[in-house]
This record gives sequence, structure tokens and C-alpha cells, in this order.
Amino acid sequence: MASPLTPRATDFPRWYQDVIAQAELADNGPVRGTMVIRPWGYAIWELVQAEMDRRIKAAGADNAYFPLFIPDSYLRREAEHVEGFSPELAVVTHGGGKELEEPVVVRPTSETIINSYFAKWIQSYRDLPLAVNQWANVVRWELRPRLFLRTTEFLWQEGHTAHATQEEARRYALRILTDVYRETMVEALAVPVLTGHKTRRERFAGAIRSWTCEGMMGDGKALQMGTSHELGQNFARAFGTQFSTADGSQDFVWQTSWGASTRLIGALIMTHGDDAGLRLPPQVAPVQVVVLLVRDEGSARRAAEALRDELAAAGLRVRLDDRVDQSFGRRSVDWELKGVPARLEVGPRDLAAGEVVLVRRDTRQKRPVPVAGAAAEAAGDIAEVGRSLLAEAAACRDERIAAVDSVGDALAAAAEGFAELGWDRLGVEGEERLAAEGITVRCLRTPDGELSLADDDTGLSAVVGRAY
Amino acid sequence: MASPLTPRATDFPRWYQDVIAQAELADNGPVRGTMVIRPWGYAIWELVQAEMDRRIKAAGADNAYFPLFIPDSYLRREAEHVEGFSPELAVVTHGGGKELEEPVVVRPTSETIINSYFAKWIQSYRDLPLAVNQWANVVRWELRPRLFLRTTEFLWQEGHTAHATQEEARRYALRILTDVYRETMVEALAVPVLTGHKTRRERFAGAIRSWTCEGMMGDGKALQMGTSHELGQNFARAFGTQFSTADGSQDFVWQTSWGASTRLIGALIMTHGDDAGLRLPPQVAPVQVVVLLVRDEGSARRAAEALRDELAAAGLRVRLDDRVDQSFGRRSVDWELKGVPARLEVGPRDLAAGEVVLVRRDTRQKRPVPVAGAAAEAAGDIAEVGRSLLAEAAACRDERIAAVDSVGDALAAAAEGFAELGWDRLGVEGEERLAAEGITVRCLRTPDGELSLADDDTGLSAVVGRAY
Repeated sequence: MASPLTPRATDFPRWYQDVIAQAELADNGPVRGTMVIRPWGYAIWELVQAEMDRRIKAAGADNAYFPLFIPDSYLRREAEHVEGFSPELAVVTHGGGKELEEPVVVRPTSETIINSYFAKWIQSYRDLPLAVNQWANVVRWELRPRLFLRTTEFLWQEGHTAHATQEEARRYALRILTDVYRETMVEALAVPVLTGHKTRRERFAGAIRSWTCEGMMGDGKALQMGTSHELGQNFARAFGTQFSTADGSQDFVWQTSWGASTRLIGALIMTHGDDAGLRLPPQVAPVQVVVLLVRDEGSARRAAEALRDELAAAGLRVRLDDRVDQSFGRRSVDWELKGVPARLEVGPRDLAAGEVVLVRRDTRQKRPVPVAGAAAEAAGDIAEVGRSLLAEAAACRDERIAAVDSVGDALAAAAEGFAELGWDRLGVEGEERLAAEGITVRCLRTPDGELSLADDDTGLSAVVGRAY
Repeated sequence: MASPLTPRATDFPRWYQDVIAQAELADNGPVRGTMVIRPWGYAIWELVQAEMDRRIKAAGADNAYFPLFIPDSYLRREAEHVEGFSPELAVVTHGGGKELEEPVVVRPTSETIINSYFAKWIQSYRDLPLAVNQWANVVRWELRPRLFLRTTEFLWQEGHTAHATQEEARRYALRILTDVYRETMVEALAVPVLTGHKTRRERFAGAIRSWTCEGMMGDGKALQMGTSHELGQNFARAFGTQFSTADGSQDFVWQTSWGASTRLIGALIMTHGDDAGLRLPPQVAPVQVVVLLVRDEGSARRAAEALRDELAAAGLRVRLDDRVDQSFGRRSVDWELKGVPARLEVGPRDLAAGEVVLVRRDTRQKRPVPVAGAAAEAAGDIAEVGRSLLAEAAACRDERIAAVDSVGDALAAAAEGFAELGWDRLGVEGEERLAAEGITVRCLRTPDGELSLADDDTGLSAVVGRAY
């Protein structure tokens, strides 16, 4: 059976939409820009969440929940912040059957409301550090929505912390970037990312430094996958968040905030997907191996059930597909579309020879394996799929990062992937020239690809590209 | 140190608010009726969620996510449904900096939007049953808000299913009621519940039968803790959700919906709380045992750390409180307020005798135990706390259910707790008389306390009471 997808090389955006529809990941919602996350897509999100949540808790942050509705006045307290968000806001003017005295905003982020509670909860150095994380929906009105990448409503986590010193706040922001975000992306999503910090033009409204994880998608474009911001004392001053220090004086707290969203599912699709659909690394695959009963004849069903039980007992997420009233071809295509890492085809003919067929989703290679060792073979393949997806993505990316020396060469290279050049050579003016062509600085990093802890950006390297 | 709470017997509502504030469970949000769920409250919610989510998945439902914003027109498709919700709606009239052409409603429940997708996804009997669950925030404008019990925004799960027959839909609704809701409430929350179905007056708008779990709180009032509805073909007809049957004809699907919310945290507080604060059953206690370092002298810290490690290795959720710069009394009171099931006090004096002090939160009894066996003793106590909270709550409730014979006696009994009387004797007229006094029928059940599967309510027993 042929793939129902537009080939990736023919029309990447169309291919992306096709994968989402055919793998039953999501649908458009009835209100423009909103999204229905279907069970398969949501099961992936739950696994991504669990991977990230575990690391967030290990970093010492506690989950909490703040209200969806924010008084309009709160957003105005930090001038730069409100400017960043005002064109995107959804406003509730009526509630409980009448017009509200003060309209309320549907949170575009919870920065302001969380800060107003921090001001209330923090009195002394003993209350610090305070680290809170929230899993929630947020709303930013989108004029050009795209499923998972830019939707009017999306799901995310946002972390907010307060510290006694700038140094500690910086260390925490970096810990989130590397130990939570980068580690989740690389180890769980098998998506390699570049890390660095944003230029002044690109950084978060209200931040003094924005650290970022940037992935390269299959079409060479960048996707900002998670950011961790040092906020300095900007919000603390706006909200009056002071603490008494150990020596009895008063100081404003130093803060961080950081977020990652359902956009990560877009990253999975666009990094690993191929012309047959999604390819999922095993860590975030709702089903890691599907046992496909080819025909319900002889001992085939019994053998398939035994394999399912053996795989489940080995701790794998397994599903038995025994819908034999539907064509084998259609079902195989479906599981490939959905990206399940490995498939065991159990049919009466192979069984007669003591075999089943093992198919790896990444390479789509099939091989017969003895029934007795099939579960162990499948488990080995599944682990290998994770490693090989990461290696393949890293190789694809690396060959599309061009070291260049001029803005002109950067422009040309960014048509295919990323360009990297000295920030001293590019500068604010060069950045504006690129921006006019739709190309932005994705991050600044040292020439060795490391994070720069220096306060000024002299000598750093700028990675530029088109971005989602 | 004295408890900072208003005594429960003096003023129950005030006591309830005090517990929420002092145990740091929640705060009021800035927009009237909204709520900030603080880390301790949210950690409890995460455990409640996990207990329920596991059972929902075992019942075959998949999680998904539907948009927050619903077009106004969707709500109008099922007449009874819109009537039930219209005075509670929050309406967004402005988005992206301008007035919207069609205002959108912030979901009060996702019934209508999920049904519109069911209509799209369901074509054949092969697509059935379809069972979807969603964890989300919903908004219902509240004029008399109360934290966790009635808030303008709350967190909940709502499940929606479609089946080929009425019989299967009924079985599923009942399975959710008993295997998901009742089991979570009794086994995880240690809250005993009565089960039955609602009268026509009390049932969910659009349902043909609403099954319910009703708890009795510490003041004798009822709390509806979870409901599971049979919707018949009402929504299917309104949304055109038809399927082709195995024999090729077309039929409307039979549906259920069911929900439980952050109100369950209110149930925990009001069922188990005492004058020293919250008392948590171990299944939903974020910390099951706290190791309290009394003073940092001699080998005390080492002993406390060793106990913590031993308890953690035994699979318990444990926290070491070594904030010795704060008073021991204040810290003990804090952990009692927060409801941690057991506490191990580790101080140099007891250690010299080879002992530590073990304190059970439910009885507040202290006893010295040898250091060597302390972890095992604590683990035993923790399990016992769960059992004993359930038994205590069941006993308190049962002695406040009065079997009565007349509406007058029901009125009197409902001042203290529940009254139970024959539905044939009460009837719709009696129900209205009670309602005028603020007393409602909580559920109908057989005289033996069982669920009634009969279509008519003759011979059933009505449990009545005041309710939250």
C-alpha cells in the first residue's frame, strides 16, 4: 500500500500537515488557530511531559497552578513585558451573564500573576530559593497558526524562580537549559540541539539574558525548542519582591523563568519523520512495539498473544493488533505512519518455519527472526532505533551548518540550513539586514560551540537561519 | 505551640479556610472566584490525578486535549445543555487586538466540542467504542466561590464515550462510577462514598441518568465527588453522530460522560481534617513521613540522614526537615497542619538511649522506638493511618444517616447529617418541599444501599441532605 503522504522533498509544509492528519496526532479546532490533540498525539505529549517533569523536580522546582484569568492591570506592571504581548491577547469582557467591571486577560504566560504571589510569599532569605513550575494552557492569538508550532492555545510548562543572588539565578537558568531541556531533547526526543543565548533583538521581553535550545528541522529551518531566561531584578522591582538578607538589609530577588511547549511534538515530526510518516524514538513512543497478527489461522493468534505478553513482561509498551478483518497492508502502513519503533508480524506461513518478521521503523528493514528469540531481538532493535535516529539527525544537521565570513554568504547558506559567523563581523546592523530577509540569529555561542558566561558578546559566534 | 486554626466545632467554614491557608494548599486568585493552587496542594492533586488516571486508562479510555475556546453556536446545539450553563459562561470578545466577529466561550465543560469531533471521527461500528478522557481547566462564573469546592476556574477530568448499544453505554458509565471513582475515593482518598443515581431534578443537563458518588463531610453536609452520566442518544442526535452497524444500517451512538475535579481536595480536607490541620491518607500524601532533626548535635544529623535514606529505599516518600534554625515546635505544628501521616523526631537526647520518637498524625500519639527498627515501625504506622482514617470517616458518617419516614423528620435529620426515606413516600413534591429548605436528594439507591438498574424509581430509597 502506498503512503498517503505528500513526499517530504516535494512540499515539506504539506508533508508536515499530512503526517499530523494521517498519524492522527491532531486536528484543527473550530476557533481559528486552536488545536485538538488526538489520543496518539496526546500520549506522546504525556511521555514528553513525564521526561521533563522528572528532571524539573530533580532540579528542585515544585509544581503549582495559577489562574487562567489575569487582571489587565497586572500585565502593565512591567512595561517591556506588556509591550511584548499586547497584540496577542484574548480578553474576557463578559462573565456570569453580564459585562465585567474590569476585563480580564487569558494568560499568554503567567509571569505577572506568579510574580505578584512571589511578592507575597517571599519575606526572608529563608524563603529562597523559591522554584515553582506550572503545566498549563496559554493563549496567544495567532494570525498564521500551524499545528503544534504556533497555535492560539498551546500546552506548556513555565518555571519561575527567585534567588538571593544574581550568580545563583544564572546557575539555575543554566541548569534548566542543560539538565532539563537539552537532556530531555537529546536523550528522550533524540533531537540534537544547539545551545547558546539570544541577541538583544531576540530575547524575551523583560529578560536580561535568554538561553535557548535550537533544533534544525528536516527542511533546514530552526525551531526554538525551549528557553531559559535570566530576569535580573526587573520583575522584582516591578512587583516589589524584596527579602530581608541574612544581615538584615532588604534586597530585590534575582529571578529566572523558562518554558517549553507542545511545539516539541512539532520538533519530533520535523526531525525524524520520513515519507512513510512519523518515526518515534522509543522513550516517547506510546507503543514501542506492535505485534501484528497477519491472519487468524492455526496457532498464529496464540503465538502473537504470547509475544505480546513476553514483551510486556520485559517492560516494553506493546500493543497487539489483531484487527484481521482489516487488510494487513493498511494496518502496516498505519503503524508506520504512527511511528512505532518496531513491528513483529506474526503470520501462519512464517510460523510454520518457526519464524516471525521483525521490522524496524527507522530503516524499514524487515528480517525473519526465530519466534523463541523474537522478543529479545525486538527489544534490541527498539533501543537501536533511539540511538540511530539521534545520530542521523545530528549528521543531517551538521552537514547543513556552514561556517561563513560575510553577511552575504550567511544569506546564501541560510537558504539550506544554518550559517555560523563571528558576531563581531555580523553585529546589530548585519542582524537587521538578515532579519529583512527573514533570517534571524538563533543563538550566540563560543567558537567551540560552548555557552558563553561573559557579560559581553565580543568574540562569540552567531548561528543564523530561517526559523519556525 | 498552639494550633493557629479556628476549632472545627466553633466554625466549620472558617476552620476549612484556615486549614487551606495554614497548610499552604491554596490562595485566592486576583480575579474573583479564581484560585492559586500552591505546591503542597498541587502535589496532592498530582497524586489524586495519578490514582484516577491509572484507573481511567485501565477502563480503556485514552487521554486527549480539546480547545479551551468554544464557538458560542456549539453550546446552542443541545438545548437542555445550554440552558444548564448559560448564566455561568465567560465570554471572550476581543482577540489579537480587535473585536472578534463571533465571540467565543471559555469551556464550562467540553461536552459540545468533543461531540462535534466524535461526529467526525465515528463512521462505522469498527470505530466503537470510542472512549476519550481529558485533564483540563474549565470555567464557570461563581457568585459564591469557595476554595476547591466552587471556584470560577477549576481543574478536572472529563471523560466522553460513544457506544453501539444503550446497554454497553450503561455498563461503561457504571464501570467508571465504581472502578474509577468509588475505588479512587475509597482506596486512595480514604473517603467513604454513597453511590446511586440522581433524581430528574438533580441530574446533569442533557443526561438520561446521572450516577453519583456522594461523600459526607465533617459538618454532616454532602459533597458530590464525581458523577457519571448516561446521555442516551441526546448529544448524538444534536451533533449527528451516526455509525453504520455491522448489518449496514445507520444508528446514532449511545454516550456517556463523567467528571471529577479539584473538589476532591476539599473532600480530603473536610473528611479527615481535625483541629491540628489536615490529615492525609498515605496514598495521596506528597510526604508520607518526615524525619525531623530536633537539634544538630552529636550524631543526630547522621542518624536522621540514615533514617531518611532507609525510608526512601523502602519506597516511601520521605523528607528530612533539618531547619534547626527554626523552632522545633513551629516545625512540628507545620507538618501536622500539612497532614503528613507520620513523623520521626530525631534528637540527641533520645538517640543517647538508642531511640527516636515516632508520631502518628491521625491519633497524634507519640512513642519512643529503637533507632534500628524505626523505619519499619514508621512504614507500619503509615499504612495503618490510611486504614484508620477510612474507618473513622465511615463510622462518623454512618452514625449521621437517619432512617426516617416523613418529610418532616427528613428535614430535622438533615440539620445534622443525611436522612434516608422511601422515594415513593418523598416523591417530586416532597423533593420540592425539601429544596425550599436547602435540602436536596443526593442519590436514589435500593433499600440495601445498592445501585438500581431498573428504569423506574419505585421502591427506591432517597438519601437527602444539605450539600456543598
